Amino acid sequence: MQQPNSEMKRITAFAPATVANVACGFDVLGFALHEPGDEVVLSKNNDGEVRIISITGDEGRLPLEAENNTAGVAVLAMRKELGYIGGVDITLRKYMPMGSGMGSSAASAVAGAVAFNALLENHLPRKDLLPFILEGERVACGTAHADNAAASLLGGFILVRSHHPLDVVSIPYPKELAAVVIHPHIEINTGGSRRILRKQVALSSAVQQWANVGGLVAGLITKDFGLISRSLEDVIIEPTRGLLIPGFDAVKHAAISSGALGGGISGSGPSIFALCEGEEVAKKASIAMKTVLDTLGLGCDIHISAINPNGAQVR
Amino acid sequence: MQQPNSEMKRITAFAPATVANVACGFDVLGFALHEPGDEVVLSKNNDGEVRIISITGDEGRLPLEAENNTAGVAVLAMRKELGYIGGVDITLRKYMPMGSGMGSSAASAVAGAVAFNALLENHLPRKDLLPFILEGERVACGTAHADNAAASLLGGFILVRSHHPLDVVSIPYPKELAAVVIHPHIEINTGGSRRILRKQVALSSAVQQWANVGGLVAGLITKDFGLISRSLEDVIIEPTRGLLIPGFDAVKHAAISSGALGGGISGSGPSIFALCEGEEVAKKASIAMKTVLDTLGLGCDIHISAINPNGAQVR
Repeated sequence: MQQPNSEMKRITAFAPATVANVACGFDVLGFALHEPGDEVVLSKNNDGEVRIISITGDEGRLPLEAENNTAGVAVLAMRKELGYIGGVDITLRKYMPMGSGMGSSAASAVAGAVAFNALLENHLPRKDLLPFILEGERVACGTAHADNAAASLLGGFILVRSHHPLDVVSIPYPKELAAVVIHPHIEINTGGSRRILRKQVALSSAVQQWANVGGLVAGLITKDFGLISRSLEDVIIEPTRGLLIPGFDAVKHAAISSGALGGGISGSGPSIFALCEGEEVAKKASIAMKTVLDTLGLGCDIHISAINPNGAQVR
Repeated sequence: MQQPNSEMKRITAFAPATVANVACGFDVLGFALHEPGDEVVLSKNNDGEVRIISITGDEGRLPLEAENNTAGVAVLAMRKELGYIGGVDITLRKYMPMGSGMGSSAASAVAGAVAFNALLENHLPRKDLLPFILEGERVACGTAHADNAAASLLGGFILVRSHHPLDVVSIPYPKELAAVVIHPHIEINTGGSRRILRKQVALSSAVQQWANVGGLVAGLITKDFGLISRSLEDVIIEPTRGLLIPGFDAVKHAAISSGALGGGISGSGPSIFALCEGEEVAKKASIAMKTVLDTLGLGCDIHISAINPNGAQVR
């Protein structure tokens, strides 16, 4: 593995936004949306360096040094591991807001890794890209939780059973499942959102939480929408983080009142997700959710999507 | 509902032993064995009282007052709820040791409730017996966790998703699954075993635990024995309770070295369970487990059983 395929000089990869945590599944569950997502374009260069040529959609906030950028770090880590000595130019096109709780940094890293792997003629199986992507996540977030990254990379509904060693499980789910993600126009710092969490939790609450994780996984695999609905409950994280999001409870309840199975905070917020049986219900729920934010005078973006079964794609 | 069916004067019900907790699933997961189990025989009497006529297999340790006995309380609770005014004689035959961690008190209560329901011509659906059984459990254990009781009542592998309100889910599982339960001849008090648990746990450990619960449930439903094996890990309860059981770690590792998928403490111990793919592996694992206890000079009983899909039965 020394040189890129000379006929494949320019690779574009898209990696989708994701909802991590998924109520009870803090740090372990995630699923992929179809849109929005980030795009990375890679091409060879002749100076032997990995460089970020341009970043769009970030309002100038992301670092242009490859070693400080989530996509750049993923490419650098793969390049080192695979002993590739050629240079790479990186163009990063962000189509989703940073700090929204939709896995923005993960999507950039995933797109970078998938594009670089394609440049190297898919030298690595898809799942094996994850450790490099997590190095990119570590740069962006300080810690590397694989729930966003794995969902964006692999698509579908994923369970990160273990981080050390990495053990990522694809959970079968009913194809009717549709998500609403509503992004109120406020920004929450992921690190800060993590720091407010207590390091100790009551055993009784933890028991409730793992019962719900078991219920949610069982409901997804057996297509039991009632069980999915009852299991979408977070008694540990949401009571704290929900306070940081204006109108959170009202938005969630508006979704449920409109027929959503349940919902919660997307990632570390401020986006709020709802899961629904069918896109029609999702549309109805999204209107009710937006109405609450309108009342509070908060602007928002709304994304309605079936679960994306494929994850990142070379385009 | 005033009188028993006069043609059905004598009902015998059997309720099986169970393994609760199942490694990561503290207080929420359980499965049923075929043997051992407890038997309750009910018959009408003419004095309008609920009486325990005899208890065998308890070495004289269980109370004969119906209102202090797990089976008696279950019958009394059902009788009150259903407005039945007739008298009932109860014979309780215990075929498994108390305080073994195999759901002894739950099995007696389940057998009592199932027998009484049969006496009333199955007036209630099977699942609706659970609240009465839990009243019996509360008498025996102080608290009422439904993992033993639900598994003994319903059979199979169960998840207690919620206690308030009760939400019990039957988890599909591979029919090849077989269990070893080895009961070292020491006794642990369930209440004491619960009191040594810390009331607060590290969030990071709780996250690991619910990832494993998700993995175990997914592995069971999708028949992924590798995933079941990797998920049979308890980072919260076992590190404390395991210390109370002489040779626990060595017994567990002997099982795994002999091919078991994994194992842990059965209920609150001292019994130790292992789950295996097939009864042949279970037999091999049981020999290795017994060898460890032999070395320590501890006697034991060994039970090898496929998962019992039916739970309690009228005989």
